[in-house]
Amino acid sequence: MNLHIITTGGTIDKIYFDAKSDYQVGEPVIGELLDSMGAGFPYTVESAMRKDSLDLTEEDRMLIRRSVERCAERKVLVTHGTDGMVRTGQALKDIPGKTIVLTGALQPAAFKGSDAIFNIGCAIGALQAAVPGVYIAMNGRLFEIDNVRKNLEKNRFEPTAPE
Amino acid sequence: MNLHIITTGGTIDKIYFDAKSDYQVGEPVIGELLDSMGAGFPYTVESAMRKDSLDLTEEDRMLIRRSVERCAERKVLVTHGTDGMVRTGQALKDIPGKTIVLTGALQPAAFKGSDAIFNIGCAIGALQAAVPGVYIAMNGRLFEIDNVRKNLEKNRFEPTAPE
Amino acid sequence: MNLHIITTGGTIDKIYFDAKSDYQVGEPVIGELLDSMGAGFPYTVESAMRKDSLDLTEEDRMLIRRSVERCAERKVLVTHGTDGMVRTGQALKDIPGKTIVLTGALQPAAFKGSDAIFNIGCAIGALQAAVPGVYIAMNGRLFEIDNVRKNLEKNRFEPTAPE
Amino acid sequence: MNLHIITTGGTIDKIYFDAKSDYQVGEPVIGELLDSMGAGFPYTVESAMRKDSLDLTEEDRMLIRRSVERCAERKVLVTHGTDGMVRTGQALKDIPGKTIVLTGALQPAAFKGSDAIFNIGCAIGALQAAVPGVYIAMNGRLFEIDNVRKNLEKNRFEPTAPE
Repeated sequence: MNLHIITTGGTIDKIYFDAKSDYQVGEPVIGELLDSMGAGFPYTVESAMRKDSLDLTEEDRMLIRRSVERCAERKVLVTHGTDGMVRTGQALKDIPGKTIVLTGALQPAAFKGSDAIFNIGCAIGALQAAVPGVYIAMNGRLFEIDNVRKNLEKNRFEPTAPE
Repeated sequence: MNLHIITTGGTIDKIYFDAKSDYQVGEPVIGELLDSMGAGFPYTVESAMRKDSLDLTEEDRMLIRRSVERCAERKVLVTHGTDGMVRTGQALKDIPGKTIVLTGALQPAAFKGSDAIFNIGCAIGALQAAVPGVYIAMNGRLFEIDNVRKNLEKNRFEPTAPE
Repeated sequence: MNLHIITTGGTIDKIYFDAKSDYQVGEPVIGELLDSMGAGFPYTVESAMRKDSLDLTEEDRMLIRRSVERCAERKVLVTHGTDGMVRTGQALKDIPGKTIVLTGALQPAAFKGSDAIFNIGCAIGALQAAVPGVYIAMNGRLFEIDNVRKNLEKNRFEPTAPE
Repeated sequence: MNLHIITTGGTIDKIYFDAKSDYQVGEPVIGELLDSMGAGFPYTVESAMRKDSLDLTEEDRMLIRRSVERCAERKVLVTHGTDGMVRTGQALKDIPGKTIVLTGALQPAAFKGSDAIFNIGCAIGALQAAVPGVYIAMNGRLFEIDNVRKNLEKNRFEPTAPE
């Protein structure tokens, strides 16, 4: 697998700035995570933006879409904040020949017990097996983009269609 | 996805017994890991054995195969020691209609920076997307069982066919 | 050692609320940390307030002082935000017969690699050996309260007197 | 504080060698731990030996004693396996003018939730406050060397005298 990774910000990349007693989106963590896990495939990382996903505009989403279209790889991982993830996924539909998986984290990767590395694992496993299309990998599940929502109350992703 | 998990022991489940200054295979960690990651699908766990994979016999492998055949689920995850993982995978071929993914860890799940949760993520992502067959998910890659070996010198999994 | 612990909030207790994409002071972590470390002494925990230390008022500091004076134990640990820690320590001087150590963390205890458990260890080791007085345990050093400041630029504690 | 650290091996330094499915004493971890915790004092590290403490001989203990006597620093931290820690401490008595604290870990420092960094913190806090003598810092307690034993059954340190 040759993998292209597009990072957009979101909780997964949040770090803590003591000076400001505040939380901000830091450098993308994905490269360091993959290397520390002994990932045995080539990948490229492109930092498209560093935003909370609630702040993403339609222009941002078009920029992400162009990055997906333009890259040579047929497998694309997008790390993303959880709140606007479904909407961005919708904006990435109908790109022929590409398998695109969006993932992120409910707790920053810097936290003990964060779901970041698990979610990235799910995304990477799915990318190698799934037919072209757009998917979200969260809560250990692989969702097709037209059958997923974030349940804000339960703070988890679930299918929109009854199971 | 309804998932059946068969645990067999291996490094992933190793813990440290100070009393004996020794390392032993402990309780399967997979259930606790999945719950802590917020996994959003039903699963069952069956502890088939607790062995170093170098100690697995052909009888053990037949026992694992029968567990895979017998379970109602069509998606089966097998956690396994890394040394005998390929051989066990070979023993699980040609079970119709089932997607079987073997995974494990090069460092015990109890270790900081262990690859366990990442590998399990990869396996679970792949299980949802892959056609029936037997696969190994290690080093962030999904290998078909007839095209994988553990490179002992490099301590990593790689394809047997040239890439 | 019978230890009384007074918690006041600060970075050490900060957790991440995904719902608000925000960081807030959560439940005091000290009890869980001590238990998980196998601490072999009796202790009591009193949550005096849950604030960023920049928000502490002189009234808050008088409340902390009264808690120290009132408790039966002669060893008192105060967990505190780092920005106002020296000032609170100054407000705890001249309480006869009590050894008081303030500590906290530059990174939340929930973070991988946080200094929280190390700082608490330093404080607890010092509490058992130090003569009555007020001290700050940060950056692996035990400072007397009249010879310490937080160097904001370097984000670390240091003595005010030349070494 | 100028601190001299003598490492002798023990559980604290144990790592896992997958190639051998075995656990061995690795490089001393103390320097890396102190740096990652932002320790703000100068220290030197001397690796005296790398042994399980059950394997330490009287000759080894004399070698450790000579290292303590010889070093210029008056504060000395000895990291040590837990089984022979009390005996080594006995062998370090009556070195005038030096405060010596032995510590170690019941779980390797490489483990999630290891007590290593907490114990080291306790030792370092105690070293700065304690009068010259030999102490053990384990389970959050500072023991004088003539009033401590390892309770093998409970796997923890406790005083020999009734409390």
